[in-house]
Amino acid sequence: MNFREEYNKKLALVENALEKIIERYSSCPLTIYKAVKYSLFAGGKRIRPILLLTAHEMVGGNTEESMELACGLEMIHTYSLVHDDLPAMDDDDMRRGMPTTHKVFGEGIAVLAGDSLLNMAYEVFLDNSLRHPGNLRNHIKAVSVIAAAAGVNGMIGGQVVDLEMEGKPAQPEILDYIHTHKTGALIEASLKAGIVLENTEQKAQEAIAEYGRKLGLAFQIVDDILDVVGDEDSMGKKPKRDEGRKKLTYTAVYGLEKSQRIAEELIEQAVSQLDYFGDKANFLKEIAYYILKRRM
Amino acid sequence: MNFREEYNKKLALVENALEKIIERYSSCPLTIYKAVKYSLFAGGKRIRPILLLTAHEMVGGNTEESMELACGLEMIHTYSLVHDDLPAMDDDDMRRGMPTTHKVFGEGIAVLAGDSLLNMAYEVFLDNSLRHPGNLRNHIKAVSVIAAAAGVNGMIGGQVVDLEMEGKPAQPEILDYIHTHKTGALIEASLKAGIVLENTEQKAQEAIAEYGRKLGLAFQIVDDILDVVGDEDSMGKKPKRDEGRKKLTYTAVYGLEKSQRIAEELIEQAVSQLDYFGDKANFLKEIAYYILKRRM
Repeated sequence: MNFREEYNKKLALVENALEKIIERYSSCPLTIYKAVKYSLFAGGKRIRPILLLTAHEMVGGNTEESMELACGLEMIHTYSLVHDDLPAMDDDDMRRGMPTTHKVFGEGIAVLAGDSLLNMAYEVFLDNSLRHPGNLRNHIKAVSVIAAAAGVNGMIGGQVVDLEMEGKPAQPEILDYIHTHKTGALIEASLKAGIVLENTEQKAQEAIAEYGRKLGLAFQIVDDILDVVGDEDSMGKKPKRDEGRKKLTYTAVYGLEKSQRIAEELIEQAVSQLDYFGDKANFLKEIAYYILKRRM
Repeated sequence: MNFREEYNKKLALVENALEKIIERYSSCPLTIYKAVKYSLFAGGKRIRPILLLTAHEMVGGNTEESMELACGLEMIHTYSLVHDDLPAMDDDDMRRGMPTTHKVFGEGIAVLAGDSLLNMAYEVFLDNSLRHPGNLRNHIKAVSVIAAAAGVNGMIGGQVVDLEMEGKPAQPEILDYIHTHKTGALIEASLKAGIVLENTEQKAQEAIAEYGRKLGLAFQIVDDILDVVGDEDSMGKKPKRDEGRKKLTYTAVYGLEKSQRIAEELIEQAVSQLDYFGDKANFLKEIAYYILKRRM
């Protein structure tokens, strides 16, 4: 199986699991059910859950045990996009070629849809943990890794500084804070959570965390680059939005060419961390190159 | 010790614990730290955490074990107020005599402050659960009770229908859905979570859940009444906001007098559920009457 086939196979598993989870909530008020579903099935790449599943498999785990953890993580990612797109935040009308949640359902319901997805992630995490009584402690540790990465010392911290720095003079160290927190934290957590589910040795945990940190930063730098060079058709949203909002980005601070070089270097550094796992890490290596070369 | 003294003693314990929890996050970006703190220490009555602590004590639990669960619950309640007050939702400028979070910090930060509080609650729940390895399963069950009550089948479900019914013709069964979900669910969960922490028998769980359901509905009916008869000074916000927004309320559907009678009956029914616990339930009985007679 080549990389693309394997990725699509995992993607289909994630989509299927997400659909089953959402169905469990079908008796809640229809408007919020529709808004949550619309937000969650808007054509995401599902990189975070696939990273979690892959890391877990790499250390001997069974996908059955990590799937709902992976799906909850995607719900947290989705909630952050729904709230980020709000007029009071990034004010985006389009995402992945579709109108954003608040454009379709109104601002009030979009706020509540984001809230629902965040809370639902924890509902899923907790129920799933209780279904694995023999490994409950590791499950809760894994959820705890994700929770810390999603909070004020992780993703939300990055969103806050991102919002505050709009239009302010460029400061490279603040740029790195934003990128490693806003995007990096959850990517790193997806890998760490997958590993923590099994009783992996400390060294493996450190290697995977370092891979995640480099990968997460590279991911966001590629995002910055795509915002400059991407075309609307393949991105599903208008390019040059960051420039218009005077966002603090890698391309604004370092220029296009140097940003590309930094991203490439980060990916090489990330991949080198995987030597520890030998051949078992092949798929994670390919994901790293896929992230570098992606066009959306 | 009379009721007021005992309530204030518990209140002081909750305030103290909340302050300690918030301090742990003091190294996060300053703006969000301030916004979270401002929202959380805006003079709430802390009824939900006090209900949780009291229920837990009543079945033999130690407050040390339930305190962080109680505090996390208050964080969830606070996040819901911050988002409810947003212009896209209830559009309230004042709460408890202070400008609402978005009035002080702007809408974007208010959205993120609400998100932070919700996520932080789960961070606190998970860390606290891991600190009680001998009782981990019950802790996770208790958190799971709270999570379900906070989500689309609980509080958020109620908020959605509340938002949708503004200005629509009164329908008593929908009114009950809103009240039992928007306010009732979390009040009921606070009691159930306290009980679940200990290995309580099924009958006790049912009695406390029924007490919580009646109490929660009565609580919201009193809120509706206060919105009509309350004065701005004691409430800390303008009265008659519901009328202005054409909200579906008990007073709008049943009138003031009948609403008052329904609330009184519910409180009597709630209190009668506590017979099962004998004298140990005295404080919960008094809380029920306090909720009926409150003026804010």
